[in-house]
Amino acid sequence: MNPDFQNNALKPTRLFSESLLAKYKKVRDQSLALCQPLATEDFVVQPAPFVSPPKWHLAHTTWFFEQMILKPYLSCYTEFSSNFTHIFNSYYKSLGPHWQQGERGFLSRPTVDQIIEYRSFIDSHMQKCLLQSRPKNKNEFLRLVELGLQHEMQHQELLLMDIKYILAFQPTASSYSSHLSDEFNANDNQIHGPWKSFQEGLYDIGFSGDNFSFDNENPQHKVYVYPYEISESYVTNEEYLGFIDQGGYHQPKLWKSEGWDWLNQQSIKAPLYWQETAQGWQEQTLYGLTPLVNHWPVCHLSFFEADAFARWKGCRLPTEQESEIYLMQSKFDQNDEQTYFHATDAWQSQGQLWWWTQSQYVPYPRYKPYVGALNEYNGKFMCNQFVLKGGCVATPHNHHRSSYRNFYKPEQRWMFSGLRLVKDII
Amino acid sequence: MNPDFQNNALKPTRLFSESLLAKYKKVRDQSLALCQPLATEDFVVQPAPFVSPPKWHLAHTTWFFEQMILKPYLSCYTEFSSNFTHIFNSYYKSLGPHWQQGERGFLSRPTVDQIIEYRSFIDSHMQKCLLQSRPKNKNEFLRLVELGLQHEMQHQELLLMDIKYILAFQPTASSYSSHLSDEFNANDNQIHGPWKSFQEGLYDIGFSGDNFSFDNENPQHKVYVYPYEISESYVTNEEYLGFIDQGGYHQPKLWKSEGWDWLNQQSIKAPLYWQETAQGWQEQTLYGLTPLVNHWPVCHLSFFEADAFARWKGCRLPTEQESEIYLMQSKFDQNDEQTYFHATDAWQSQGQLWWWTQSQYVPYPRYKPYVGALNEYNGKFMCNQFVLKGGCVATPHNHHRSSYRNFYKPEQRWMFSGLRLVKDII
Amino acid sequence: MNPDFQNNALKPTRLFSESLLAKYKKVRDQSLALCQPLATEDFVVQPAPFVSPPKWHLAHTTWFFEQMILKPYLSCYTEFSSNFTHIFNSYYKSLGPHWQQGERGFLSRPTVDQIIEYRSFIDSHMQKCLLQSRPKNKNEFLRLVELGLQHEMQHQELLLMDIKYILAFQPTASSYSSHLSDEFNANDNQIHGPWKSFQEGLYDIGFSGDNFSFDNENPQHKVYVYPYEISESYVTNEEYLGFIDQGGYHQPKLWKSEGWDWLNQQSIKAPLYWQETAQGWQEQTLYGLTPLVNHWPVCHLSFFEADAFARWKGCRLPTEQESEIYLMQSKFDQNDEQTYFHATDAWQSQGQLWWWTQSQYVPYPRYKPYVGALNEYNGKFMCNQFVLKGGCVATPHNHHRSSYRNFYKPEQRWMFSGLRLVKDII
Amino acid sequence: MNPDFQNNALKPTRLFSESLLAKYKKVRDQSLALCQPLATEDFVVQPAPFVSPPKWHLAHTTWFFEQMILKPYLSCYTEFSSNFTHIFNSYYKSLGPHWQQGERGFLSRPTVDQIIEYRSFIDSHMQKCLLQSRPKNKNEFLRLVELGLQHEMQHQELLLMDIKYILAFQPTASSYSSHLSDEFNANDNQIHGPWKSFQEGLYDIGFSGDNFSFDNENPQHKVYVYPYEISESYVTNEEYLGFIDQGGYHQPKLWKSEGWDWLNQQSIKAPLYWQETAQGWQEQTLYGLTPLVNHWPVCHLSFFEADAFARWKGCRLPTEQESEIYLMQSKFDQNDEQTYFHATDAWQSQGQLWWWTQSQYVPYPRYKPYVGALNEYNGKFMCNQFVLKGGCVATPHNHHRSSYRNFYKPEQRWMFSGLRLVKDII
Repeated sequence: MNPDFQNNALKPTRLFSESLLAKYKKVRDQSLALCQPLATEDFVVQPAPFVSPPKWHLAHTTWFFEQMILKPYLSCYTEFSSNFTHIFNSYYKSLGPHWQQGERGFLSRPTVDQIIEYRSFIDSHMQKCLLQSRPKNKNEFLRLVELGLQHEMQHQELLLMDIKYILAFQPTASSYSSHLSDEFNANDNQIHGPWKSFQEGLYDIGFSGDNFSFDNENPQHKVYVYPYEISESYVTNEEYLGFIDQGGYHQPKLWKSEGWDWLNQQSIKAPLYWQETAQGWQEQTLYGLTPLVNHWPVCHLSFFEADAFARWKGCRLPTEQESEIYLMQSKFDQNDEQTYFHATDAWQSQGQLWWWTQSQYVPYPRYKPYVGALNEYNGKFMCNQFVLKGGCVATPHNHHRSSYRNFYKPEQRWMFSGLRLVKDII
Repeated sequence: MNPDFQNNALKPTRLFSESLLAKYKKVRDQSLALCQPLATEDFVVQPAPFVSPPKWHLAHTTWFFEQMILKPYLSCYTEFSSNFTHIFNSYYKSLGPHWQQGERGFLSRPTVDQIIEYRSFIDSHMQKCLLQSRPKNKNEFLRLVELGLQHEMQHQELLLMDIKYILAFQPTASSYSSHLSDEFNANDNQIHGPWKSFQEGLYDIGFSGDNFSFDNENPQHKVYVYPYEISESYVTNEEYLGFIDQGGYHQPKLWKSEGWDWLNQQSIKAPLYWQETAQGWQEQTLYGLTPLVNHWPVCHLSFFEADAFARWKGCRLPTEQESEIYLMQSKFDQNDEQTYFHATDAWQSQGQLWWWTQSQYVPYPRYKPYVGALNEYNGKFMCNQFVLKGGCVATPHNHHRSSYRNFYKPEQRWMFSGLRLVKDII
Repeated sequence: MNPDFQNNALKPTRLFSESLLAKYKKVRDQSLALCQPLATEDFVVQPAPFVSPPKWHLAHTTWFFEQMILKPYLSCYTEFSSNFTHIFNSYYKSLGPHWQQGERGFLSRPTVDQIIEYRSFIDSHMQKCLLQSRPKNKNEFLRLVELGLQHEMQHQELLLMDIKYILAFQPTASSYSSHLSDEFNANDNQIHGPWKSFQEGLYDIGFSGDNFSFDNENPQHKVYVYPYEISESYVTNEEYLGFIDQGGYHQPKLWKSEGWDWLNQQSIKAPLYWQETAQGWQEQTLYGLTPLVNHWPVCHLSFFEADAFARWKGCRLPTEQESEIYLMQSKFDQNDEQTYFHATDAWQSQGQLWWWTQSQYVPYPRYKPYVGALNEYNGKFMCNQFVLKGGCVATPHNHHRSSYRNFYKPEQRWMFSGLRLVKDII
Repeated sequence: MNPDFQNNALKPTRLFSESLLAKYKKVRDQSLALCQPLATEDFVVQPAPFVSPPKWHLAHTTWFFEQMILKPYLSCYTEFSSNFTHIFNSYYKSLGPHWQQGERGFLSRPTVDQIIEYRSFIDSHMQKCLLQSRPKNKNEFLRLVELGLQHEMQHQELLLMDIKYILAFQPTASSYSSHLSDEFNANDNQIHGPWKSFQEGLYDIGFSGDNFSFDNENPQHKVYVYPYEISESYVTNEEYLGFIDQGGYHQPKLWKSEGWDWLNQQSIKAPLYWQETAQGWQEQTLYGLTPLVNHWPVCHLSFFEADAFARWKGCRLPTEQESEIYLMQSKFDQNDEQTYFHATDAWQSQGQLWWWTQSQYVPYPRYKPYVGALNEYNGKFMCNQFVLKGGCVATPHNHHRSSYRNFYKPEQRWMFSGLRLVKDII
């Protein structure tokens, strides 16, 4: 670990007025809690290259604390297993060779029990480190702990995405949680809209404040934006069915060139997890297989589908900046402890589904990536991805902030991704 | 199931003078016993497309009894799970769609416990069926039970092959059995040879007798064979190291054209499971990682490697017929209950390793495949495979017979495959 | 053709004050002139999927006039060949099925002679159309003719790129043009720099004026830019050799994640067309194989290489907007009739090589694509490409304008692509 | 070239009683004559990896004489071009690296004219060599010349196969020869059969005599054959249409396992070159596109299709040995100078189409491959191929002999391949 680790994006923060140890424990416990409904076998498989086995997530987030904090900051620390350095490195080339991503599902060993033992081992050393250590550079140390926790929270969302994919892939019915309460199924007859408008001019974009943020949200900077209006609701299943029924998947002019090739090669005909059955459309959710509910927001779209739908509607996707300006004027209650595993309210301004933007993921002006091994955290992925904004039901609550930049490749759709429309005001 | 199932290759046999139920139980128990050293996670993974997860073997062999016997012969039988009909069908197109072979490792469900429950369920119904049923066609019924058991025994060998591959693939050290006793490591200075010779003339090839045999071993028929001599010993590790050291893997003239492409694309430099380390060559075995023992027979060769080695030696591989004639004159003690998981005696005439022949796997004259669903058991694979003869340490003992035809693609080598040489007598 | 074709980006222009027919003839003749050095066989092959056979370019540009102008605007026009509609459609889905791009090199027919006959046929009908027709909508007609000529000029640059690739691929030496005069080889000892700086503030970006422009350059709009300085010279071969010699291709931290995978899979070690020989580095050019000249600008880089080089230098690539602001303050002499086939002057402000920007190719605010079939001209490619600016030696002279947006995938490098550096002023 | 080149299979022969030079000239001229109908562009393309551009055949057959004869036997010979040694080596690893087979269609250079110049150069040196040389080892020299001519004749058949594939691939109609005379279209109402039977017993198989033969036809040897009857006619288009109409391509039980995968992956529904049109089935031939003629023998089948058809008929394919025994009792008039480019007579005993056998291509007992570079001629391909027998309309007349062994992979079908049925006599 580079001893000169310093980054303005990781400012000393108010967060540490609460007990850091309690916070550490809460985040770590939550990862295990999310896996509670799984059978041992569910921890192991990788039914698509972009999915990781749940046990791998549990180990990799632990590896992160071991590599980034225990090794440089806990004197006399001896690693749990030299093999793990290699197996649970995701892609940090500066930390040596790493296991191939597409072969994570070939690992039967270490077992789930061994990984839980690994977590306990690291947790007890982290406790020692947090309570006793007087690190050479306290601010830097605290920033790294915070980053480790933020990293684990990002993986908690990935865990839910991957668990959903794994269970939905199984030929035998299975659900992660018991069924949604009936109240969610109440009918909702509202049509799309209304629209919220924003004026032309210069806006400040990017993170500001004392709390934690990632390097890619910084620095705050000015952008010139033209007048637009953005829909107050997410696009719903019902609206999306209209697109399907009117042949949206068969009209090349609605699609990006790469998207058209993708949908034909993959025979894409509907969002991921949708199935057309004798009883009509159904959707695989973490609550099991469910009849499609018209007024729920449409979920698990690729950029290509979101972009084509918007064009079909005579609208367009928002830019990243337009989305952030909209988010700055809305609110998300981070203290709401209730957890859902599916998006059911199209009228929320955020926190239901990530929405696709038309902005590719490029660095902000004067962007400075982390230095040292963490340099590989964000910047090296700024190529051929699109930004998503707004957060989703699987996102840990304190990741909901207007400057947060999520990003995926345009064909990916196993995250909780939806769609919000924009129109130019001429 | 075709009610007219009949096949001369499945003759009524003496075998049933012993208790059929006891035999059934013994075979079924053995499959579970072979899995005893595994962790739950080891049952799930599929690190190469040709490997099957151990739990899949346990379920598929059970499925075979359910489909071929319980459904047609046990009145009022209700299947355990309609899903399983599809998931655990290997490739029987006549029994409907089947799960893709390459995606067996994506199945976390059904769990190992559910599969063991499935086995118990089928076993109790098979018991009922064996003790009480008066099937319409008793001979046919008995033949099918026998076939189901033979089928499961074939999978017991596959189980060991696949477990070996899975454990060897793991980055953390693991072994299936405790280490070999030292007596096997006694030095053995004998050189290759001597040779056993056979005269020119007509020989009878193929199965004869009352015991069980597969369709592909029948009918017995005459072949004209030219004089040859066959080595009394398997080729050893030491001899094979000579081939490596003298550049055998770098001389295109030693290799079949397809083999040369294969070895270059796959960067093949030694048998499967061999590793060159600072301490010399080592070999992954079911007893763990072991230094290479010079006088043990070389194992886990592809046809391409065996064929190239023989050419390098100025010899050739035996034909299928030459191998069978040799086997008819040697003996294997089927009552020897001791089980080994590695081949350590190059001087056995059989039962250590399958040896490659230069014969592609084609039908015998007047070959009649099974009828009905079992038609797909053997005949449809008679294309682009090579025959292996002789049996191996992982082979159930009563599969050792001279007419048994094993077959694999020329590049495969995760089975226990070795090499025996032949020379023409001119 | 959509009769409602209208696009603000295609404004009636001053260009037509000169003889349109003469202009048409000049552009069309130039395409044939560029192919003059080729053997018949050179017109046919496609050694990489992204390369098109020269005869295909000659036919496709002709097809464009036939489909977009003759069919809708010349009454009683009968097409030259119904097959050609399909064969020479590049990717316009709205005009029916089209021949697969990767299979253009499988076409021996139509022959080169037949394609030249096709060109003559279309040219004589275009002449009739230009001289006699009184189109329903004259402005639209004139815009389409202009677009057809601009389109053919774009393909003239592609022709040179593809011819270069084809000839360089041949195992027998061949050159397109006789050798460069010696004057280009004069030594040039200037080091990199100096730098030209620009102030923070709002700038107008995009096309303005009465001349022709493509839809993607419009509309003009404001952007907020932070202070930066841009190098007055292109990066040279000598500087790039330093990057190679100091291990630039072996340091993952310099590379985008996708770029690192790309260079390892493809074993990339130098720019396209470079060869390390016993006599030192050489470069395949349209003048044949040439020793590398230190002070020439480095050419045929991918985005990944340009981006990694900039990072290695402690600089970064310019954005699209920074490049355009720089171009607006420099000049290109469009009347210079001299033609070169290689970039030899690193100190030109433009017109030597396209330089990569760090901007992905996304729509401008309020961008309106063409309507009708031409809708597929630009907009559908706004996904996973990067913008290049500045023009190159193979670019037709009147394509040199500051608002022109060229775009390629980040791994592509057979166009004449180079590199210019930028630094933030803090 | 190994100076010890010797092979019993290449015996000194009566052939040389006729003028060797005249024979050389006749064979060489024939290769050019076969290309006479082509446009320059047709010589260049390679629309499938297994097809070679016609100009490549012309050069490779020439290269063979240069490498095998001129270099070792003509003193002071200087090669035409050092590049050609590499470009036109097909797969002889012992002669150094060779151009990739799949990239032959990327070569625009050398041009057709340059290759014809190469042929003339080699021919004039061969003339010198044939008339003047007193080679050290005359018998060996004569054998090599014979082999070179046989090799070129094999490529003449390949030339026709490849030309057919290239022209059929073009989207514009083209034919190699003017249309078949009407007499061939006379109706023929004969049904399948009759059958010719053979008795059980030992037969001699393989080449005997003084004329030329390839190494793989030797040595003659005994085989034991069971009684069978073989159809006197080839299977016709009409019979094969019955197979299609009754769902033959949709019944997995008719197919080899690999064949079933192949047909589903490739969406195979009929023989190569068949098209179902509004006017019924049509077939692309070297005479152009032709309505399917019922009584012509069905052509361009894979092994998988031939094997499935035979199973559907309740018959099987002949073995290689059964085919050869049948051929030994029939006759082919080698002096018939008339040349056809399509098979139109199902009642010929041979010479219309190669027929598939159920025998994989393995070495004969005591087979000795050529030594030296020619070792790579046949033996290294004895893996995963099937033998075809009988010759076809594109086969040079003096290649028609009962011992000739042709071989292809089971999925290949661009050669002139058909089908003849066999039944066991029980």
